[in-house]
Amino acid sequence: MVHNKSAVFLKFPSEFPIPGEHFAIQTKDLHVSLKNNEILARNLYFSLDPYMRGRMNDAPSYIPHFQLQKPMSGYGVAEIIESKNPAFPVGSLVSGMTGWEQYSVIPEGFTKLLRVLPKNARESKKIPLSAWVGVLGMPGFTAYSSLKVIGQPKTGETIFVSAAAGAVGQLVGQMAKKLGLRVVGSAGSDDKVDYLLNELKFDAAFNYKKNGTILENLKRHAPEGVDIYYENVGGETLEAALECMNTHGRIIVCGMISQYNTTEPYGIRNLGHIVAKRITMRGFINDDFAKDYMEDFVKDVSAWLEADAIIYKEDVEDGIEGSLDAFVGMLKGKNFGKQVVKIADL
Amino acid sequence: MVHNKSAVFLKFPSEFPIPGEHFAIQTKDLHVSLKNNEILARNLYFSLDPYMRGRMNDAPSYIPHFQLQKPMSGYGVAEIIESKNPAFPVGSLVSGMTGWEQYSVIPEGFTKLLRVLPKNARESKKIPLSAWVGVLGMPGFTAYSSLKVIGQPKTGETIFVSAAAGAVGQLVGQMAKKLGLRVVGSAGSDDKVDYLLNELKFDAAFNYKKNGTILENLKRHAPEGVDIYYENVGGETLEAALECMNTHGRIIVCGMISQYNTTEPYGIRNLGHIVAKRITMRGFINDDFAKDYMEDFVKDVSAWLEADAIIYKEDVEDGIEGSLDAFVGMLKGKNFGKQVVKIADL
Repeated sequence: MVHNKSAVFLKFPSEFPIPGEHFAIQTKDLHVSLKNNEILARNLYFSLDPYMRGRMNDAPSYIPHFQLQKPMSGYGVAEIIESKNPAFPVGSLVSGMTGWEQYSVIPEGFTKLLRVLPKNARESKKIPLSAWVGVLGMPGFTAYSSLKVIGQPKTGETIFVSAAAGAVGQLVGQMAKKLGLRVVGSAGSDDKVDYLLNELKFDAAFNYKKNGTILENLKRHAPEGVDIYYENVGGETLEAALECMNTHGRIIVCGMISQYNTTEPYGIRNLGHIVAKRITMRGFINDDFAKDYMEDFVKDVSAWLEADAIIYKEDVEDGIEGSLDAFVGMLKGKNFGKQVVKIADL
Repeated sequence: MVHNKSAVFLKFPSEFPIPGEHFAIQTKDLHVSLKNNEILARNLYFSLDPYMRGRMNDAPSYIPHFQLQKPMSGYGVAEIIESKNPAFPVGSLVSGMTGWEQYSVIPEGFTKLLRVLPKNARESKKIPLSAWVGVLGMPGFTAYSSLKVIGQPKTGETIFVSAAAGAVGQLVGQMAKKLGLRVVGSAGSDDKVDYLLNELKFDAAFNYKKNGTILENLKRHAPEGVDIYYENVGGETLEAALECMNTHGRIIVCGMISQYNTTEPYGIRNLGHIVAKRITMRGFINDDFAKDYMEDFVKDVSAWLEADAIIYKEDVEDGIEGSLDAFVGMLKGKNFGKQVVKIADL
């Protein structure tokens, strides 16, 4: 028996979720008695991602909403500490769908959403364990696959990335640079803009809260127009991007975080550009591309990490206790880099 | 020398164009003295299409705006009555880009936008001359190619077509029926709805002005959701369609006529469905697909017409004098079927 702290879902929020009201950390005793093919995971890192806000809505989506009164789930890195499944021996490290909690019993049906990490993952200097839910995990694959499939990037084109210092945006920008694109990013603080320009070497970046409207900023920083817009935020930024798109532009719709926590969504008034400029706008989830691109992704990104050819900033919350506030902070853009929670030391 | 009545563009409108203010019929003397490779066309039919409203805006688009103080241009059917171009002998019939006027001198550079009609076009019982700017012209090819390329229709799926009794909509619906889809249409009068149900054999159709909101109507008539939305109108109808789309739905963005004549465009508030339901939304123009689909189009549609396997309703305005009012009427949805102007008898 162990004490297990979990982030439990309590109530559907209509705006920003409030710790204590919509979700809470609760401690329960965990009596472990594994059935055949089940495993017990000790969670080490847990990933906080904007898409999880969608799981807090009672509305149809590609993924079921969180169950009320149950621990929430998401991507994590864990160590197997008990096992009745030969594919996951005790002591192995895994990444994939785990619980937002200290310990998770993974039922047989969910073990297919886990992968065993390479043997050297424990010691790697170049690839921290948290990377498996970041640059080498869902956000990394999101960036890599959608940029290729939907973006159809061509050397010399201009890409505009919103939330460009976030989990997905920072990778999209760097990958686009490697493909010879001109990269323009937006972010919500001067620190983030400095990071984009000076660390990630974006060609241009702006703080969307300053120096005029978003449209004025975008026109100034992408005077030749936008061929690919990597959409993470929605609202006024999407409207500005539509205004600046070039003919045959592509909009990769990864997320619209500005619209997740409001009961008064922003109305987009210039979709007529989709006709006039023959724009393609497409939403997706990772699974759509996994079969065709996962192998190349792991190979390419691992090689870039080993060669220090890609930078990946994480914002690590230490301990599950502060993870609810960290989640709300991420929805408000307070994180700087990919938001993760360190639940335990290896 | 001939007297030539032309529809001349006078002023950029911000809402509905007003005859006499933004455009007018003017009569001028035409002194014809053809240069090498020029031709003189006697216009027989002229096509009035919603996209032409976009050419009345001083804004970037895929096609230049109309020139002030000059006759407007568009798709027409004409007879060649003088020629210095061996590809267009006197007496031949052509369709393609001509003038909104009685007679047009076609400069050499524009003759590539014309095609000579088949020899039997003069006598065909099944294919009236006006068909070459309708079911066998731009609107027909628009419907045919975009349904295939962007729609990716599969037997058993549901397609929703707005402006379904219009130039493009009526063809999209019939073509989708041939491919085994369930077809739901919306239109702006009970007469049009009757036509969709009883003549074109749509599976369901509704008058968007009656029986509750557009969303309520659409939910009632497409209870299993929408896999393909053929977008002709924009605004509230687009919002309703987004609400009803199924996962991996496709939105073929042909036009947004409800938004062309307003200075206060409707704000679309539920684009978040593009993420959650992985929707593809794509604008296009014909030229994007001509190379790959034109040959099949002419073959298929000619065969359907010969076999009475497709119905195509036209709304013919007799004489250029009333064509400005007919154009405004079309923008307001007053036409019933594809709007054309008969300029002269053959």
